Amino acid sequence: MGATVASAAQRRRRWLQLPLLLLAASASARYTPDWESLDSRPLPSWFDEAKFGLFVHWGVYSVPAWGSEWFWWSWQGRHDPQYEAFMQLNYPPGFSYPDFGPQFQASFYDPKRWADLFEESGARYVVLTSKHHEGYTLWPSPTSWNWNSVDVGPHRDLVGELAPFLREKKIHYGLYHSLLEWFHPLYLLDKKNNFTTQNFVKAKILPEMINLVNRYKPDLIWSDGEWEAPDTYWNSTEFLAWLYNDSPVKDQIVVNDRWGKDTGCKHGGFFNCMDKYKPTTLPKRKWEMCTTLDKRSWGYRRNMDSNEVLTDLEIIEELVFVVSLGGNYLLNVGPTKDGIIPPIFEERLRTVGSWLKTNGEGIYASKPWRVQMENTTTTIRFTIKQSDVYVFYSDWPQDGVLRLTSPIPTNRTTVSMLGVPGFLKWSQDSVDQGLFVYLPQPSPAIVKMMVWTLKLEEVK
Amino acid sequence: MGATVASAAQRRRRWLQLPLLLLAASASARYTPDWESLDSRPLPSWFDEAKFGLFVHWGVYSVPAWGSEWFWWSWQGRHDPQYEAFMQLNYPPGFSYPDFGPQFQASFYDPKRWADLFEESGARYVVLTSKHHEGYTLWPSPTSWNWNSVDVGPHRDLVGELAPFLREKKIHYGLYHSLLEWFHPLYLLDKKNNFTTQNFVKAKILPEMINLVNRYKPDLIWSDGEWEAPDTYWNSTEFLAWLYNDSPVKDQIVVNDRWGKDTGCKHGGFFNCMDKYKPTTLPKRKWEMCTTLDKRSWGYRRNMDSNEVLTDLEIIEELVFVVSLGGNYLLNVGPTKDGIIPPIFEERLRTVGSWLKTNGEGIYASKPWRVQMENTTTTIRFTIKQSDVYVFYSDWPQDGVLRLTSPIPTNRTTVSMLGVPGFLKWSQDSVDQGLFVYLPQPSPAIVKMMVWTLKLEEVK
Amino acid sequence: MGATVASAAQRRRRWLQLPLLLLAASASARYTPDWESLDSRPLPSWFDEAKFGLFVHWGVYSVPAWGSEWFWWSWQGRHDPQYEAFMQLNYPPGFSYPDFGPQFQASFYDPKRWADLFEESGARYVVLTSKHHEGYTLWPSPTSWNWNSVDVGPHRDLVGELAPFLREKKIHYGLYHSLLEWFHPLYLLDKKNNFTTQNFVKAKILPEMINLVNRYKPDLIWSDGEWEAPDTYWNSTEFLAWLYNDSPVKDQIVVNDRWGKDTGCKHGGFFNCMDKYKPTTLPKRKWEMCTTLDKRSWGYRRNMDSNEVLTDLEIIEELVFVVSLGGNYLLNVGPTKDGIIPPIFEERLRTVGSWLKTNGEGIYASKPWRVQMENTTTTIRFTIKQSDVYVFYSDWPQDGVLRLTSPIPTNRTTVSMLGVPGFLKWSQDSVDQGLFVYLPQPSPAIVKMMVWTLKLEEVK
Amino acid sequence: MGATVASAAQRRRRWLQLPLLLLAASASARYTPDWESLDSRPLPSWFDEAKFGLFVHWGVYSVPAWGSEWFWWSWQGRHDPQYEAFMQLNYPPGFSYPDFGPQFQASFYDPKRWADLFEESGARYVVLTSKHHEGYTLWPSPTSWNWNSVDVGPHRDLVGELAPFLREKKIHYGLYHSLLEWFHPLYLLDKKNNFTTQNFVKAKILPEMINLVNRYKPDLIWSDGEWEAPDTYWNSTEFLAWLYNDSPVKDQIVVNDRWGKDTGCKHGGFFNCMDKYKPTTLPKRKWEMCTTLDKRSWGYRRNMDSNEVLTDLEIIEELVFVVSLGGNYLLNVGPTKDGIIPPIFEERLRTVGSWLKTNGEGIYASKPWRVQMENTTTTIRFTIKQSDVYVFYSDWPQDGVLRLTSPIPTNRTTVSMLGVPGFLKWSQDSVDQGLFVYLPQPSPAIVKMMVWTLKLEEVK
Repeated sequence: MGATVASAAQRRRRWLQLPLLLLAASASARYTPDWESLDSRPLPSWFDEAKFGLFVHWGVYSVPAWGSEWFWWSWQGRHDPQYEAFMQLNYPPGFSYPDFGPQFQASFYDPKRWADLFEESGARYVVLTSKHHEGYTLWPSPTSWNWNSVDVGPHRDLVGELAPFLREKKIHYGLYHSLLEWFHPLYLLDKKNNFTTQNFVKAKILPEMINLVNRYKPDLIWSDGEWEAPDTYWNSTEFLAWLYNDSPVKDQIVVNDRWGKDTGCKHGGFFNCMDKYKPTTLPKRKWEMCTTLDKRSWGYRRNMDSNEVLTDLEIIEELVFVVSLGGNYLLNVGPTKDGIIPPIFEERLRTVGSWLKTNGEGIYASKPWRVQMENTTTTIRFTIKQSDVYVFYSDWPQDGVLRLTSPIPTNRTTVSMLGVPGFLKWSQDSVDQGLFVYLPQPSPAIVKMMVWTLKLEEVK
Repeated sequence: MGATVASAAQRRRRWLQLPLLLLAASASARYTPDWESLDSRPLPSWFDEAKFGLFVHWGVYSVPAWGSEWFWWSWQGRHDPQYEAFMQLNYPPGFSYPDFGPQFQASFYDPKRWADLFEESGARYVVLTSKHHEGYTLWPSPTSWNWNSVDVGPHRDLVGELAPFLREKKIHYGLYHSLLEWFHPLYLLDKKNNFTTQNFVKAKILPEMINLVNRYKPDLIWSDGEWEAPDTYWNSTEFLAWLYNDSPVKDQIVVNDRWGKDTGCKHGGFFNCMDKYKPTTLPKRKWEMCTTLDKRSWGYRRNMDSNEVLTDLEIIEELVFVVSLGGNYLLNVGPTKDGIIPPIFEERLRTVGSWLKTNGEGIYASKPWRVQMENTTTTIRFTIKQSDVYVFYSDWPQDGVLRLTSPIPTNRTTVSMLGVPGFLKWSQDSVDQGLFVYLPQPSPAIVKMMVWTLKLEEVK
Repeated sequence: MGATVASAAQRRRRWLQLPLLLLAASASARYTPDWESLDSRPLPSWFDEAKFGLFVHWGVYSVPAWGSEWFWWSWQGRHDPQYEAFMQLNYPPGFSYPDFGPQFQASFYDPKRWADLFEESGARYVVLTSKHHEGYTLWPSPTSWNWNSVDVGPHRDLVGELAPFLREKKIHYGLYHSLLEWFHPLYLLDKKNNFTTQNFVKAKILPEMINLVNRYKPDLIWSDGEWEAPDTYWNSTEFLAWLYNDSPVKDQIVVNDRWGKDTGCKHGGFFNCMDKYKPTTLPKRKWEMCTTLDKRSWGYRRNMDSNEVLTDLEIIEELVFVVSLGGNYLLNVGPTKDGIIPPIFEERLRTVGSWLKTNGEGIYASKPWRVQMENTTTTIRFTIKQSDVYVFYSDWPQDGVLRLTSPIPTNRTTVSMLGVPGFLKWSQDSVDQGLFVYLPQPSPAIVKMMVWTLKLEEVK
Repeated sequence: MGATVASAAQRRRRWLQLPLLLLAASASARYTPDWESLDSRPLPSWFDEAKFGLFVHWGVYSVPAWGSEWFWWSWQGRHDPQYEAFMQLNYPPGFSYPDFGPQFQASFYDPKRWADLFEESGARYVVLTSKHHEGYTLWPSPTSWNWNSVDVGPHRDLVGELAPFLREKKIHYGLYHSLLEWFHPLYLLDKKNNFTTQNFVKAKILPEMINLVNRYKPDLIWSDGEWEAPDTYWNSTEFLAWLYNDSPVKDQIVVNDRWGKDTGCKHGGFFNCMDKYKPTTLPKRKWEMCTTLDKRSWGYRRNMDSNEVLTDLEIIEELVFVVSLGGNYLLNVGPTKDGIIPPIFEERLRTVGSWLKTNGEGIYASKPWRVQMENTTTTIRFTIKQSDVYVFYSDWPQDGVLRLTSPIPTNRTTVSMLGVPGFLKWSQDSVDQGLFVYLPQPSPAIVKMMVWTLKLEEVK
């Protein structure tokens, strides 16, 4: 044994301890690696104030760009005949999914242009898929050699390049990360062992997530791909304890609830529950609804039809709905393999941004009001900020009078419409003490708004 | 000389005569190959009635899909440094434009889906680039061997496949055809000879156009690429005489005015004059304005920004403007190399179609009125159909009263708004005998229309 | 009709006359466009003196490099199931032969290295396929736009680049040219018309051959692909009359006999008759045997086995056989798509060259002797140069004595072996007046020769 | 902690123990993980008897196929300007080495054809590069996901497919395996840490080698890439102890000496020492000389010249030299990316095989004689098998008498030449007691042998 080399035993121990060391509690540690402790951590305030975020699904699936981002699984996992036919029709026999890698070129990827658009959209945070279930990483992960965006395809650090532009605009940066990788041999091995072994977690997932956090210092980790194995397999509580106690992002970091097959809607940071999840009553814990502009896919599809895209109105109504119930709204776009956000998505984002410029006052940093919705003649939603109540509606009453039953006016009450100068006339409903608001003449400028916001001051 | 083979002299003569025979006047010929005769042909009526057409620019330029459909010329004709840099950055040294050919795959080209969309848009004719200046033909032209869509790339007859679907929907089918081909060696040879030789015209252009007409029997030939040489070089009058007298489409065929460097706005069928040409007063001859949804290109650009796309309002206002002056409006889309019409274009076309569903009554088969435009407080345009006058405006007057100075009401006059049941109130202007129309309350449904159409019956 | 442009009639005439002018007899013309006159032209002497040439088959077939240079025809002409399976197995559906074009890159094509090797081989002329039946030209033919080596693939003038290196080494340059093109639409049209039309010949073949001659001034045109149509279809006699009378190569040009379906072994310059043709007795007219190192293909095959390559001995014996009967030996190599002559071919050529260095004295510029072959105990062949008779044999007699029956010695007769200093002993056969030659001890150096040459001076 | 999942601590231990368990001594273990013990293992006898093996270098470097199999390192490790220029000239900017992966298609890989050729060559073992320094594995290694021949490129198990064909012919199967991987991030990390960490060895190398052994049960592991780190870093002694004690190949397995930077020529199984190493005197331990047909590369080079290939004579002389000194001769071929062994290599192998068919009697299973070489007038080498002494020479003496000084004849002594029937005359040297052998007349058949073998029976 030479002097420069540790003994085999020492070395073996060292290797083992590496993750332990990283996970070790620091002197001032507050969280223990169990859900009781971890769940008690207060969510950093930026997240609830942000309300509106953008999700970006980008990866090797953007090359076939057909079906959905689950392309690989649909084709070679569940052997969907449509996908098999697609491959037979368009590629030579034996073509494999990794063979798509070199075609993912991101030639037009311009992170500044992306950030400008994200800012225009009014989003306050952006979540990029650092790695989806395909396992391909959008940064040079040392445990994903030759299956990452620097080694194969774009030859660029896609995660890293976006960071400075977002930070310059004070947009928070979140990273989506899939725990499982459909076809990783070590994952398949553990799965075969009923997850009683952790080859994959130790060799791949923990080093990778730690690398991701240390390297990019994200504000948010959007975990996914947890559903097949318990959180104990994933070592999730150990990871989160390290993240909350000792990581470089321990103060601002926000996480979701996908850390094991039983943690969704139960443990973690904010709750995503299921994709596109919508509660019907006010949830107790901070939550987020994620959804996607292309109703049929999160990743880019070359053959997407404009009829399959959420309309401006659908988006804004959904945003208002979510915020009224205390949620955040995370809206997804899928860029092309060239790194272009399709113009129809761009246009949607700009429209939302334009709406938020006028109406964001009632959205950002708002709280749910004591009543979140009225559904008398038409649907009406509420938020509150300090003492001001905001009222959102999207059906313009025929007679120009909006009837509200929940707000109780006082004699100091004023009513205005965001984007319209001056106050509106109102009267009190003699029967149920609600408010009659006399809306302005719906000029083209007003009508274009699609969803209108009234601001009630001094109501109860 | 064997019995089965003509003598060399005979064969030589025959070869020569082949085009002559094709161009020869039939017994009942009416047009002679000179402009005086050809210009006198009445335009088949379908064209003027159609008013709205779609233009489709698709070709090998849809592969680099950058800059514009003039990619090849920009790169290797005028050596634009930006194009040279683009090639250096993205392709190996020595990569040539024809090397793009095999990548033009049209994998998702679904002519039925195209035709459905074209119908939804309200277009009454569609003009497809059968061949642009690059020379690549979208059909198996026998004089464009290995540089056409059946031999190289899609391996499909792109022109032919669309035809039955358009015909099923009674949409007229036009074919764009470029006379010049930037880099064809025979064209370059003739050009070097100051167009005193016609190697290119005889070996390529005439056989090709005749093949196109005989094979697809188009309703319209949209000629282009004429500007470097006189019509005598192109043998245009001979071709048109054949087309009008003896071709299988002699009755319905419509052509434009690009048949030689001095023919634009002077000779041929309808006038295009320049691209995006807009007259200021009522032209004497039937004309067409062609323009493109992507303001910066006719061919697809991968990096097109949504801000560079004509808005719904711009399109509808332009359509109304053109029709009020007796023109047709030909609106261009550039499909991707996969054969997809980008969703943002799709959406625009659907919006126009939706507008035309309500307002097309004042557009299709209309004629210019004695007054085409008023510009008092706001811009107002007119058309007439039979005795009904249609009034188009896009600025909603603050006081809800539209002032018209040109129509003179009678006591049988009625005024209605397309899409709104019933009649509107009106009064006569005591001063200048114009009409005051009392508009309806602008409900969201009305406001969404963007441009409104009034129908005046029994006015003078 | 403008002043700068000829009248339509004039122009039409000019176009017609273009080939006529080129074919027109000059003042001092000696040959008329008929076989009697053309066949009477003496063959330029360089060709008979050269004896040994190399043939190079190179084209787009070097990309699939499987089966043979007839790949396209085997696949899509006669639909050989093996070829169809090969395509299905290795390429996406719809892949076409022209799609191979961009993969023909000639990255390592180094014409100097080729010329060095050709010189080492002892060849005195080289025939390169300027265009095979696929129609792809290895030079920028103006009538083969986008289907030539400058537009597609190598982006280099493959024909032109080799010329200066051959000329520097005084190796004559021949160009193989296929008249027919399997899939050219104009050829197929003429074929359908039973070759009573000449669209293809006029628009493609004549301009192309004239271009080839004027541009590269070859020493030899090796015509092929003539077999489906009579020479009158190809206008062969007119072309040859121009070539012999007025072309820039009229003095040195040599051609073969493939000018129409009935001309082989009958008309033209030297005779090729069929591929790999071997006469059994001394032909009356100068002939050439063409054959190929790869026994199964003229074009490169990636999966060629070394057992399928002619051996050194086979080549040398065949060369001697051919030369003894007054023929030239044209030995073919098929370079890879990269432009590499496979090392096993290289090695064969070097071995031949090494043999010729010693034995070429009896080969180059020799003539057939009055007896070309003896076949008593073993096969023996003869040539003569001036008065010296050369004797070639490849079986070393067991007793070291070579018995010759044809040469009649005189008392001044000397016998030597090329490559061995000094004279050999000999005695006269008392019975039939032949010669007994006492061979030297077969040292390794001698044995390596494989075929031995004796030089007999002063025999009858 | 659920019942189905081990405790974190347990799991952690299990992970650690996995390799330990594999490495654990079985009940009957004989070797301890130290060199003293391991070096004492007798070499399985098949290896020394085999004498002649073939080496096959095949990998992603067979795609650029230029320079050598060190392409990646030359280009991006030492930044050789020639390699940088090669890439710039032939590939688009940003093209990476892993991008070559999908082009490695092995379309013509026919392991039966390989095995037939290997048998024809007379080789008794074959060593295939299961993984070279590039890290790409020719089998689906679970720790080389998406960088192996099943995931990327051929989509076949190249290692596995060859096995049955070799075994059918009783050719032993060896697997070359590189310990280091130039660009593996974990290796680079350990290297940066001066090899005091073993991230790479634990996560990659040990699992991989164990997988290779268990999966293919090779007869030989030809280790390489050891030179930058000590054997303690590689855990070599532990691996070898497992291999010798407990692996499924513990009885027949043979290894070389490349297990750490100081082990070459010192420890392990047989000695390779350096590439192409040739001792000058009889080594004490079994050794092997590896060399390559292409003198300039082990991997295929597209532009290899036939002059750069070892000649038949060079190969046979080297084989005889090596065997006379007790070594094995391992001769390398580099197949193309298509899986073809270039014909010139094929031919060499067939020639060696043909020589061995006659002369192998003195090679296979022979031992070094008490004298290995004489160098009096010409070089003469010896081997012995049982009591027969074999004499090899390649210079044919001018006078046909071979003079041997070392063998001492007896009165029972006989001398024969392999391939020639009967006995040769001999006499004893009166001076130094050596042997004069009277060689036969060198017929062409004899001369073709290049190196001749005499068999001396009953000499001392």
